[in-house]
Amino acid sequence: MEESPQHAVRGLGSLPWYVGGSQVLGLACVVITGVWMGHYRGGYAWDGSSREFNVHPLCMVLGLVFLYGDAILVYRVFRNENKRNVKILHAVIHLLALVISIVGMVAVFDFHRTAKIPNMYSLHSWCGMATFVFFCVQWVMGLAFFLLPGASARLRSWYLPLHAFFGLVLLIMAVGTSLLGITEKLLFSIQNTYSKFDSEGVLANVLGLLLVGFGVLVGYVVTREDFRRPPHPEEEALSVHFKTLTEGESPNSP
Amino acid sequence: MEESPQHAVRGLGSLPWYVGGSQVLGLACVVITGVWMGHYRGGYAWDGSSREFNVHPLCMVLGLVFLYGDAILVYRVFRNENKRNVKILHAVIHLLALVISIVGMVAVFDFHRTAKIPNMYSLHSWCGMATFVFFCVQWVMGLAFFLLPGASARLRSWYLPLHAFFGLVLLIMAVGTSLLGITEKLLFSIQNTYSKFDSEGVLANVLGLLLVGFGVLVGYVVTREDFRRPPHPEEEALSVHFKTLTEGESPNSP
Repeated sequence: MEESPQHAVRGLGSLPWYVGGSQVLGLACVVITGVWMGHYRGGYAWDGSSREFNVHPLCMVLGLVFLYGDAILVYRVFRNENKRNVKILHAVIHLLALVISIVGMVAVFDFHRTAKIPNMYSLHSWCGMATFVFFCVQWVMGLAFFLLPGASARLRSWYLPLHAFFGLVLLIMAVGTSLLGITEKLLFSIQNTYSKFDSEGVLANVLGLLLVGFGVLVGYVVTREDFRRPPHPEEEALSVHFKTLTEGESPNSP
Repeated sequence: MEESPQHAVRGLGSLPWYVGGSQVLGLACVVITGVWMGHYRGGYAWDGSSREFNVHPLCMVLGLVFLYGDAILVYRVFRNENKRNVKILHAVIHLLALVISIVGMVAVFDFHRTAKIPNMYSLHSWCGMATFVFFCVQWVMGLAFFLLPGASARLRSWYLPLHAFFGLVLLIMAVGTSLLGITEKLLFSIQNTYSKFDSEGVLANVLGLLLVGFGVLVGYVVTREDFRRPPHPEEEALSVHFKTLTEGESPNSP
């Protein structure tokens, strides 16, 4: 879509509001998950009890939803910074998200082992494991293609749109899996009072809607045309424009 | 992204495979939902019993997922047809999806009324109602902006990217809500055998993954740059290019 400079500037003026809104929603999700597990479900521990299970939702929402979404947003928030630095920040936040989500995964498997609950039978576990495995693959592929030397400009330009598309798919899957987890937890814990609109159920439902809102806002910011990172002359050699492909790999490629 | 004509042609060659794949996945979802409710849950009726409930998942997967996804795909499948005809097809398939989903909604409310089960307490119901209401709003807005006369070219060009973005958001919400419904139904019906990997649970989990696959494929086809509808000279007056906005509304606008 071609735009007049005035329109592009007007559009950009709203970017901080969308990013700010996403941070408010994302932090609200983390806090509400923390309050739900801390206040209604008995708090946290690392002893194989249900209080160890409580670490699981908090880590997954913090890691695979909030930090993961923020890792995606850095390309819009730091639109004019050096691209290599932004790439490193993107990879580091994703690594932090990965480590926190591993802690969350260990917590639930450990709880299941102690309580002798079978693993990996529910749709929540299938979707969650698929999201986690694809996230690991996506992280390694991103490192190999975009940060380590070796990948040609042609390979990078082929992979970039796939990396961006599946990156957003994984955020959506993380949000969806969280909603499945909320539903499972409520039906396991408060099946008899859930239908009476008790406060725990309403809080958890609100958490679900806020998670959806976070995903929608991040998705909107990263797909809106006039929020895209502008082309910088010094990065053109690394760009994904197909016209550069015939010139081979640039010696400036990081 | 700029592309050579050869690349664009090579990319387009894969479009029928992606569309075909989406149809296989979508039809598999409808058939598996039908088999699940028909074989494992006692079949269909319209008598307020749980067999009336069984109409609900089948209608929602057929209407709000499969037909809704296909309504989005028509702009890629009929890339070179007259745009007004494609718009009408898009609106008609969505209308069919809307009618079928209304039947599905009536089925579940009717079942709840007979069985004295409270309505609208679960996250599934909140997400489903939000999806349904926004879908109605989106359909009416689409009709008013793009099919009825009256909306200026400026208004259309402002609304088009929002319509496309929220259209995809609604498909994702419909898929996510379906997964929540699968989880709810399994935990209400087979909570004791679900963790033993009984065939009904595995079938329903597979249905969930196929629904995700359908959503990912449709999302990929409609967001991939080289699958976009090419600009047609006679439609330029109706296009969303901002350069046309300063010329005011075209007399050819439908």
